[in-house]
This record gives sequence, C-alpha cells and structure tokens, in this order.
Amino acid sequence: MKQIYLDNAATTKVDEKVLKEMLSYFSEKYGNASSVHAFGVEAKNALENSRRVIAKSINAKPSEIIFTSGGTESNNFAITGLSYANYPSKTHIITSKIEHDCVLNTCKYLEKHVAQVTYLDVDKEGFVNLKDVERAITSKTFLVSIIHGNNEIGTIQNIEEIGKICKAKGVLFHTDACQSFTKVPIDVKKMNIDLMTINSHKIHGPKGVGALYIREGIKIDPLLHGGGHEKKLRSGTENVSGIVGFAKAVEVANQKDVKNMTELRNYLMEKILKIPNTNLNGPKEKRLCNNVNVSFGNIDGEALGGYLENDGIYVSTGSACSSHSGESSHVLKAIGLNQKQLAGSIRISISKYTTKEDVDYFLEKLNRIVEKLRKVLK
Amino acid sequence: MKQIYLDNAATTKVDEKVLKEMLSYFSEKYGNASSVHAFGVEAKNALENSRRVIAKSINAKPSEIIFTSGGTESNNFAITGLSYANYPSKTHIITSKIEHDCVLNTCKYLEKHVAQVTYLDVDKEGFVNLKDVERAITSKTFLVSIIHGNNEIGTIQNIEEIGKICKAKGVLFHTDACQSFTKVPIDVKKMNIDLMTINSHKIHGPKGVGALYIREGIKIDPLLHGGGHEKKLRSGTENVSGIVGFAKAVEVANQKDVKNMTELRNYLMEKILKIPNTNLNGPKEKRLCNNVNVSFGNIDGEALGGYLENDGIYVSTGSACSSHSGESSHVLKAIGLNQKQLAGSIRISISKYTTKEDVDYFLEKLNRIVEKLRKVLK
Repeated sequence: MKQIYLDNAATTKVDEKVLKEMLSYFSEKYGNASSVHAFGVEAKNALENSRRVIAKSINAKPSEIIFTSGGTESNNFAITGLSYANYPSKTHIITSKIEHDCVLNTCKYLEKHVAQVTYLDVDKEGFVNLKDVERAITSKTFLVSIIHGNNEIGTIQNIEEIGKICKAKGVLFHTDACQSFTKVPIDVKKMNIDLMTINSHKIHGPKGVGALYIREGIKIDPLLHGGGHEKKLRSGTENVSGIVGFAKAVEVANQKDVKNMTELRNYLMEKILKIPNTNLNGPKEKRLCNNVNVSFGNIDGEALGGYLENDGIYVSTGSACSSHSGESSHVLKAIGLNQKQLAGSIRISISKYTTKEDVDYFLEKLNRIVEKLRKVLK
Repeated sequence: MKQIYLDNAATTKVDEKVLKEMLSYFSEKYGNASSVHAFGVEAKNALENSRRVIAKSINAKPSEIIFTSGGTESNNFAITGLSYANYPSKTHIITSKIEHDCVLNTCKYLEKHVAQVTYLDVDKEGFVNLKDVERAITSKTFLVSIIHGNNEIGTIQNIEEIGKICKAKGVLFHTDACQSFTKVPIDVKKMNIDLMTINSHKIHGPKGVGALYIREGIKIDPLLHGGGHEKKLRSGTENVSGIVGFAKAVEVANQKDVKNMTELRNYLMEKILKIPNTNLNGPKEKRLCNNVNVSFGNIDGEALGGYLENDGIYVSTGSACSSHSGESSHVLKAIGLNQKQLAGSIRISISKYTTKEDVDYFLEKLNRIVEKLRKVLK
C-alpha cells in the first residue's frame, strides 16, 4: 500500500545525502575526538567542521555552538544551567503556555528547587503579547524562554522583538528553534538571541543529536558534568557521526524547499478548510511552512487518524512527543479550544519529500472519511 | 602506512554487523517511537526489542533499562537523580578516587547544592577496600557509586561484595560499567546492583547512546524533563538507530572474543614488562581483558606516544576523556605514582579486532623507541 508520511513535525526521514556523509564515521573514522593522536584529530576535525557549518547558518561563532543529544537536552541544559548559574541572586523565569513539554516540565521541576516561573498566555493564534513579556520582567528575572515556531500549531513568534525587549531590560533570551531552524531565517545577532535550541532529526538529520547556541560570555552551569568536552559545558564523548550528519542536514537545507513547502502547505490548507465545519488552529500568516493543524467539528480526531492510517496516511492526533500520554494538548487549550474542538483536531506536517500527489491523495481520503464519520455520528 | 589502533578504551570501531543493523532506521524506518501510528509503532518495536536484548544480557527486566545519550549522561542521571530524590532526608554519597571524571565532577557539582561526598582511597592496584566502604556509610548515606572496571588501569572491583554491603546497610549501589560491560559477566540481581551505567561506543556500537539500569521500585528524579519518554525518566525523542546498534553490539559480544583478548593482552603484558625499568599500573589479575597500562622509567609518555604515532600506532597517554586538559591522571595519582612515573605512563587497549601481528609490530616499535628515547635522555 501507498504510504504517505505527514507527521514531519514529529520526526523526519534522514536525507540520503546526510546518511552518505555519516557512514565513514562508524567503522572507518571512528576515533574519539578527545584523543590527541591522529585518529582522534581526524574525528575532532570533522566535529569542528560541523560546528562551523551550523554556526554559520545562524550567524554565530563556532565557539558558541555546544553539541548535545537533541532538543530536549538543549532546552533542559539552557534553562537548568542558567537557573543554577544565577541562583540565588536571580530566580525568575518567563516562558509561555505553548512551549514544548521539555521547556514546561523543566520549569516545573526547577520551581521545586531554585526558580519561580511565569507562564504567559497567548492569543487565539498562539502569539505571545510583547507587552506581556515586558510587564512580566522583574528585578529577579534572569531569563525569557519563548519557542520560535510552535510544534503543534506552527505559530512563528516575533522573536526579534522579544529579544529586543530582553536586551533593553538586561535579561537573557532563549528560544527553542527546533521546528523553525532551516525553515525560517535566523540570525542570532540581529534577532538578539542569547541562547537557542536546535536539533537534527526535525531537519532530515539523524536522531540523538542537537545543539545549544550560547552567546559568548554567558555564564551557564553544565547539565552533564565529566571529562570537560565542549568547552567544559557538555561532557560526554562526542557523537561524531551524528554531528556530521546534523551539519550535512543544515548544509542541504535551502530556501527553495521552504518555498515549495509553503506553496504546498497553502494549497493543502485552502483545500482542507473547504470541508464544512473545519477550523484552522494557529495563524494563516507567520506560520511554519510545513504545518497545518485543523479541528473538525463532530469528528473524533483519534478515529480520523485511525481511518487515515488504514489508507497508509500518517498524521498526528496530538503532540507526537507526548501522544502516548493520552492527555489533550496544552497548546490547543492555551489558544482557547474547547474539549470538543480539542478532540476533533489533527496535525498534518509535510516535508520537502511531500508531493502534490501525496497531498491530493490525502485530501481525497480525508474528505471521504470525514463525511463517513459525520454520517455515523448523525 | 599500517595503522594500529590500540586505544579501544577511548572508543571502538563500530562492528560492521552493527552498522548493517542500524542502516534501515535512518531513511526507511525513521518513525518517532512516540507516534501512535504504524510508522511510530515500527520504531517503538525496534526500541523495545533492543531493550529486551540489553536487559537480558545483565539479567534485568526490560522495564529496568532506560536509554540515554551515553555513559556520561547515565552517570550524571544516576547520581544527580538520586541526590534530588533523596534530598533533604539523605544527602551523603560514597565514591572512590578512581572514578571516571563524569562521576567525580557530578559529585563535586552536587557538593555545591545538595550532597556531601566521601571519596574513598584505593590500594596500589586500584582496589577499593570493602571495610572502607562499610565504615563510610552513615545514616545520611543514600548512595555508593563505585566503578566496575577502571578505564585507565583496568582494575575490576569486587562489586558483588560492595553490593552486598550496601544491601545490608540499606543504601543504594550504583556502578559505572562502561568498560566492563560485555567483557566481565554481570548479573545485576546476583551482584546486588541497584543502578548501572552502560554504553555503546566502548563495545563496538555507535557513539551517542547508552543506558542506565535502574532496579524496579527505586525513586529517582529525571535529569532530562520533557515529553515523558522512557517511563517519564528520560525525555527526548529516542535515538532509534543508535539504540538498535547498541543492542546489536551487545548481541554480537561473546566470551570467545573475551578469551582471545585476555590471551593477547597477557602476551602483550608479559612482553612489555620485559623492557627494563617498566612497571605495570593496575593489577595482573582481576583486570579488564583489553587493558595494559605501563610506566616506563626515564621516558616521557607524550614523546613515546608521538613516536608510536609516527609508526601508525595509536595508544593513550592519559585518560582519553580528558586528554586535552593537560592534567595528569587522577587515577594514577590515586594508586600512588609519583610525577615521573605519571609522566612516563601509557595505556594500551586492544579490541577483538587486534591481532597478534598488530601486537608484535607494536612491541617491535615500542622496544626501539624506548631504547632511543632513553639514549637521548642519558
């Protein structure tokens, strides 16, 4: 059966060019990048080349890129590391109600020990109010952490303005850019970003690798202590093949793919909203190029997902990262959806590999299933 | 030029069988193991199969294996997670002076916040005194963490007895088994191990993946908070290809290879100690099957390493994990070496791929270089 993967916000296919680049780092150039001999230096060079590629893509210095095991670690590292580095003189964090679970749950954990946290509301489209950010900053605040592109509803925050506010107020600004990285142009200097989380498996790189951009001069405690890798900020033998793959994924990402995805996404969004009693979650503009999130009236999203799967189509019926939990989306709640709308929502996320034929096939099946399910419920 | 890699305690070549097993999980079966659709379930099944293989190899239940990004994370997770879970009622940790940096530096960091730590001395061969362990336990102690096989000098501790003491005293026992795993038989139940760190890249698996065995019922805080992966103990999208590779590495590890390595190591050790003014660091018995660590009198280890490298031979002239730091080994210091002996030491670590021809070539070059360097120094 035809298989159509429309869950690219959960994870993506590793690009064949990426895999090809990685291959020699498993069984040939397998040195430990910390070993001083030539075999280690070979690995170290691959590591540093990768660091340069990634740094350049966001206008950072290579020394400002710290490799981690992924987005979750980077977000934990940023928020926890800054919390302990600033404790006890500064203890207040500002974030939003639509952050990824790894930001929210890190904040909740830190509230037990060293931090107070303000969780900002968002508007119906998922935007943080800039005035709210400014108003929430106190003399105790050391950090504002706001997600760049939302993983569920695709809202792209105005991080440049948030960064400007933070800079003016003398607090640090961290953004989780896992979903937006390579899809939305990011210039950490121009956008006043102090720390930024990026990862590999959302951009056709391998799983298990990510990075944290940390602006030069920022005081942060490590989360992983040990042999002093990554400028003593993140210990652990570097995952060289993974990092090389991550850098290659960044290298092959391009604006043409973004343009194509945007067009295809717009087509998909337009067609889907023609289905009666259907609402878009998240904004029409300032939206991630690969994301559509829709609530269908009188439809159970789980059932819809199940029927689509019978036709070989994979979408998400919750935030993929916690879809086994059975809890309804905190993001959809935060933008004001009621229980029925929550239950009737699905996320469709395309990639550069998604074709118009895929989308048309999906739309055809979707229309038929929605009609059928609504008939049953009548 | 011939290349002979004798630094397998730093990292190892990925076994071709391991790489082959991993390959389909990059660009074909690339689903997110947390996605509920069939594409996610396929990844989830691979994950759970891997968990079963690894659990079985140490006589644990699959549910007791938590995947991480490697040994450093597992050690950080174990010690930090238990510290916070026990704080403030229990705050005392016992460890040894010859632990890996990631245990020592985690302990040092926790001393700033929530723990007091006792660092036990070891004897000349690197063994912890069982009586010392027992004596150090107080009513505040919640954890004893002792490395199983030492990464520098190969000493294999009597962890079964340490585990017995901990059990009798009602404190938890964690062991870092990164170097011993698959080389020394481990039965977590029989050996009274409560938590154990293992990793992949020391056993011919990929870098960037490891695990923490946590005995059922133990209360531990997560180190990485987020989407609730790994029984809510370690969030972050699972590195499926890495985990599949890790499990395959465990599967292909066997006692025949261990026997061969032991024989070859004994041969190497015997020949090397015939060089005049040469001392073995670590024990002759109860030693990791792949480890030789020797101090050469009147020799600078760095120079020796450099000359060996000119002949295509890679050994370690310090703990590889911190070899860029320039500091001398805390392990060699702990077993009583003086500055000259420290400076004259090298670690040779073989693998299943090392042949007798490799060892003979190494010995021939080593003899010549040592002779030459000593002549120069006269």
